[in-house]
Formats: sequence, C-alpha cells, structure tokens
Amino acid sequence: MADKFRRVCVVGVGLIGGSMALSMRRMGLADEIVGVGRRIENLKNALQLGAVTGYTRKIEQGVEDADLVILAVPVRAMPELVKSARGHFQPGAILTDVGSTKAKMIKAIEPLLAPGVDFIPAHPIAGREKSGAEYSDPEIFQGRWTIITPAKSSSPKGVQRIRRLWRALGAKVELMAPEVHDRILASVSHLPHIVAYGLVGALLKLDRKTPLLRFSAGGFRDFTRIAESSPEMWRDICLENKTEILRAMEEYEKELRRMKTLLKQEQGKGLLKFFETCRQVKGKIRNSNG
Amino acid sequence: MADKFRRVCVVGVGLIGGSMALSMRRMGLADEIVGVGRRIENLKNALQLGAVTGYTRKIEQGVEDADLVILAVPVRAMPELVKSARGHFQPGAILTDVGSTKAKMIKAIEPLLAPGVDFIPAHPIAGREKSGAEYSDPEIFQGRWTIITPAKSSSPKGVQRIRRLWRALGAKVELMAPEVHDRILASVSHLPHIVAYGLVGALLKLDRKTPLLRFSAGGFRDFTRIAESSPEMWRDICLENKTEILRAMEEYEKELRRMKTLLKQEQGKGLLKFFETCRQVKGKIRNSNG
Repeated sequence: MADKFRRVCVVGVGLIGGSMALSMRRMGLADEIVGVGRRIENLKNALQLGAVTGYTRKIEQGVEDADLVILAVPVRAMPELVKSARGHFQPGAILTDVGSTKAKMIKAIEPLLAPGVDFIPAHPIAGREKSGAEYSDPEIFQGRWTIITPAKSSSPKGVQRIRRLWRALGAKVELMAPEVHDRILASVSHLPHIVAYGLVGALLKLDRKTPLLRFSAGGFRDFTRIAESSPEMWRDICLENKTEILRAMEEYEKELRRMKTLLKQEQGKGLLKFFETCRQVKGKIRNSNG
Repeated sequence: MADKFRRVCVVGVGLIGGSMALSMRRMGLADEIVGVGRRIENLKNALQLGAVTGYTRKIEQGVEDADLVILAVPVRAMPELVKSARGHFQPGAILTDVGSTKAKMIKAIEPLLAPGVDFIPAHPIAGREKSGAEYSDPEIFQGRWTIITPAKSSSPKGVQRIRRLWRALGAKVELMAPEVHDRILASVSHLPHIVAYGLVGALLKLDRKTPLLRFSAGGFRDFTRIAESSPEMWRDICLENKTEILRAMEEYEKELRRMKTLLKQEQGKGLLKFFETCRQVKGKIRNSNG
C-alpha cells in the first residue's frame, strides 16, 4: 500500500497531472492537492472535477508545505519552474515529474534543487491526444508502464515511495537509467510520432496538387490521430531527445530504402517475406507486456 | 433502388467478398449467390453465415449462368481467373471487382474478356486488418467510399447498375479514371501502409539490440494494427501500383528530410509550426468527407 501524502502540489493540471491528482484523491493518497497553472479556467475545471482541493497561479505558493511536488508540464518548462520555486520547497519534500524525456532534463534540474529536496524523475507511458484537466481520467495509468529513472541524487527511499505511488495508481513500474529510457522511448514513441507527422505533412502537400484527403481510408486515419498531439510537447521532446531520435530515424530510413529497392526491382518474394515478418510484431508486444 | 441480380458469383469469399454477399442477401438483391474459393472450410463458413447459397471450387462452374460476377481476390490473381473462366460467362453478364489498384489490372483483364461480358471495375475503400469470410460484416461499406473506375469497354448501363448496387450497400460512390484512382490511393492508403510496415520493420530490428517492444505506447500500437494486413494483398498492391507508390514515397521522404534538418539544427520554432500545421488535417478530412 502506498503511504499517504499530506499536501501534494501538481504543477500543470493537464491530462496527466489532472489524472494523477484525481486518482490520488479517489484513493485517499493525499489530504490536499494544490494545482498550479497559468489558465484559471483550467484550474477551476480541475477543482470542479475534484482533482484538486485548491489552486494558485504562483508555483512559489504551491510548493510551500508540500511533501510531494509533481511537475506535469512540457519538459523544457521544468527547469525554470524549479528555479523559481527553489527557496520555497519544504525540506524533505519529494519532487517528481511525468516528462517524456529524461537525461537532458535531469541534468538541467539537478543543480537547481534546493538542499533536502529529493528528486525522483518518472515517466508514465500513458499519453492521449487530448490535453487539459477536463479529460482527466483516474483509470488512465491502469496496466500501463511507468518508468522511474533515478537521478544521481535520488534517495532509495524516495524511489520506493514513488514506486509505491505508481503501483497504487495501477501502473506497472520499471526502473532504468535516464539514457536507456531516452533510447527506448525514441524508438517506441518518438519515432512513431515523427513518422506520423511526416506522413501527415506529405499528404497535406499532395492534397494541394490533387484533392485526395476526402478519400482517406482507415490506415491513414490512425496517423491523423497521432498528429493531434500537443505541438509544444512534441517540440520539446524533439529538442530534448534529438540524438536518440536521429539514431532511430536512421534505422527507419534504412528500412524505407530496403522497401524502395524491393519495389523498384519488383521483388514480389522479398516484399511478401518482409510483410510476413512484420505480422509477428503484435505477438511480440502481447507476449512481453504481461 | 438497385435492381436485383438472379445469380451472383463471388470469386474469393474473404472479408470484402463475404461482406458484399451477406449484404446483398439481406437486402434481397440476389436470388442466388455462389461462392468460389480454394479453401472448403472458408466456403462452408460463408454458407453457414448465409452469405452464399452455394459454393464451388471451380470458377468455370461458378460463373455459369451468373448475371453478376464479383472478383474479390488479390489483384494479381484476377487475370488468370478471368482467363480460365473465359468460355463459361453468360453473355450479357456484368463482371466487377473490388481490387485496391486499377490501371494495370484493367489492362491485363480487358483482352481476356469473353464477348458480351461487361467489365465494370470498382474499389470499395473499406478494408480491415482481418481476412476470411468469418469476419463478414454487411455494414462494412456504410458511409464509406466506393470508387468506380470504368474501363474503355465498360457500358454506361453497366456502370449505372454497379453504382446503384454500391449505393444500396450504403456506400458513397465516385467515378474516376483508373490512373487517377491509383494516384490518389497511393497517397491515402498505400503510402501509409508502406510507412507503417517500415516502422514495424525498424522496431523489430531495434528490439534485437535493446528489448523495447514491451514498452510500446499507444502511438506505435496503431501502426502494428496496419501491419496485420494480408501480406499477399500488399505485395500485389506494391507490384501493381509501383510507380505511383514510389512517387508518393518521394514526397514523404522530402518531409522526413525537412524534419531531420529542423531537428539537427534544433529549430524549435520551425518544429512547432510544422506540428501545428499537421493538426489541421483532421478538420480537412472531416469537412470534405460529408
């Protein structure tokens, strides 16, 4: 069972921050939850939903007396926020985050930490193409992975508390080094988004020559769903995880070139074999995801 | 209202052939439907489902006395089948198909047609990642496009009958030249599949270096669904529509290169602007799909 927090501060009450808050409230894991954000409208929504018990637009005020602070804003906004709240953290407070990239962000935040603040970075792999507190869903983490990527300064005790918290929210938890996380996520999440954005971009251009989007079939519609994600979030992910994303893109471009050769040379057998190999992937995901 | 057919022969009782048959039966658009296929098991399923009223493994026997023959097999298998049934078509019969590529297939089939057979090529854009008669769904065409691509020999009367048939099955019908169809489908359907297959292929390779597929997130799962499609069907589509697919791939590769440059140069503003542009696509599809 996860131990209770007295006062939690959620910085950024969007889909993930709001869902965490709502889930913690429902499970009785926090006496108080203060939401910090810029848009009053969104904070009011969060209050009405019961995700937070109060809110403020000032992070300095939000972290005051909090024994858990959760950063749930785009990764690149995190260091500045930590810096401005620096003098206001309660000694012994745990600081965690939900960012999609880790190594660079951790390096930027560690030197800014107030003494006695225990930073435990984490990443729940549970995004959707919606943003804002109004989409909060306490079930969103159920059966999904949360990856904890301890920083050099993270205490084992803090890691355990955050691990128990995520388990209580229904997640499967794995620990790994920030660099390993960033490499894996570049492949399973960032590359697919780049690929989808590229396809949508290409079709928007082709559509200008010959109107064709009206005939778009099921296959393409899945891609457009991905392209509805938050542009700010994906800009930050690209900038923070550039090296690993470029590496994954190279592997992808190799595959595209290989398919192009098979096509150009009309190698029916080669194409068939490749498509058959790809069919295995579903099984591989299923088998290893238990 | 569509006029009734006396005896329909469906060659290939898979997802599309089976769904057409089932829908025609339910709407009373055919007195008899004969299924032609190789796998007896599948034909028995179709009979049990009520999609067909009889079956045979011999196409010569199937087309005998049929006033409508529907080819619902992979595109590359079509010419051979038409050839072997050549002497058995009823004069005045309509021959149609449901193939995903048109120009090359039509060129191959036209010289093989028996005199008096009216060939009306068509393509219902309503695929799913399942195959086999057991997945037949009479609602599958509802609100989806069917594109009729008349051949040089197609009679206006035959085109009208096939158009009425598809409207009766719930489809929105559009007529266009086979070459235009192939160009549009290369963009909205074939390219997305190539892109998805390439991504799945790349991730299977990356997974061998660092096991990562178990952490695959929502974004990637959509791609794996596409990669479950029939390998034979996609091999045929690639071979039949090679030129247009390569053309679409080039536009796509241009976009990828552009994104790569933005990434390498860490152009946050450029990335943001591009991602924001991509968000428009959903609206464009919705607005033009009414």
